Amino acid sequence: MNIVVGSDHAGFHLKEHLKTLLYKWGHDVVDVGVHDGTASVDYPDYGSAVGKKVIELGAETRGLAVCGSGIGISIAANKVSGIRAALVNDSTGARLSRQHNDANVLCLGERLVGPTVAEDALKTFLETPFEGGRHARRVEKLDQLK
Amino acid sequence: MNIVVGSDHAGFHLKEHLKTLLYKWGHDVVDVGVHDGTASVDYPDYGSAVGKKVIELGAETRGLAVCGSGIGISIAANKVSGIRAALVNDSTGARLSRQHNDANVLCLGERLVGPTVAEDALKTFLETPFEGGRHARRVEKLDQLK
Repeated sequence: MNIVVGSDHAGFHLKEHLKTLLYKWGHDVVDVGVHDGTASVDYPDYGSAVGKKVIELGAETRGLAVCGSGIGISIAANKVSGIRAALVNDSTGARLSRQHNDANVLCLGERLVGPTVAEDALKTFLETPFEGGRHARRVEKLDQLK
Repeated sequence: MNIVVGSDHAGFHLKEHLKTLLYKWGHDVVDVGVHDGTASVDYPDYGSAVGKKVIELGAETRGLAVCGSGIGISIAANKVSGIRAALVNDSTGARLSRQHNDANVLCLGERLVGPTVAEDALKTFLETPFEGGRHARRVEKLDQLK
């Protein structure tokens, strides 16, 4: 699977950690940055970049976006039309985001979620199928919102 | 403060519970529905309605949006231009969403967060000021994203 990853400085270390796992699991990874965690950067730039690249690469692509709390980068990613970015704290949230919302971007907060919990959430996010049915109507409505 | 509240059926009971508290705390509450938790409705309709009403009522207005996980309704609210909707699990997330993101809508998942944790998150969300400074530049960037 194509996975687009991105973070600001506060999410850099978790993004790098999860990127290593994604390679290990055999995915193709596109990293939109930030490529260095030492300088302060603006999360809207990276949330938007993840979202736009996911749309550009097509329907089978997923995204991973990390900042300190996950909140700012999830707001930014969701401003991109067609993006359904789910901020989660664990694999339960990740599972529901796939089953009910067909989420295409997973958002995490490096300051709030530890690396092992984040790994489980990412694994669940990648492995859980969308349930469709009544949820499909709602996802269509999401994609029509402005 | 004007507070716009909304939920789907899965967030109805937590929305009603928190609405009672908002009245007790002296706020003006606008409830965009759902007004009955027995029928299945679509969260995009209510997330969008909360966001649009917050924008309509002006800068000092805040929103509260609840669904089962909080994920779907936070995606929907964030599709509205000018809305910064923060999905949180506790008062730490609520505090950071105000300090760093100037969040104007708080999102909660009734199936994931218990009522006492939700109460604390809501109180923190309403009482915590935005820090401004470098965060103001990022919030301006968020508001320019499409």
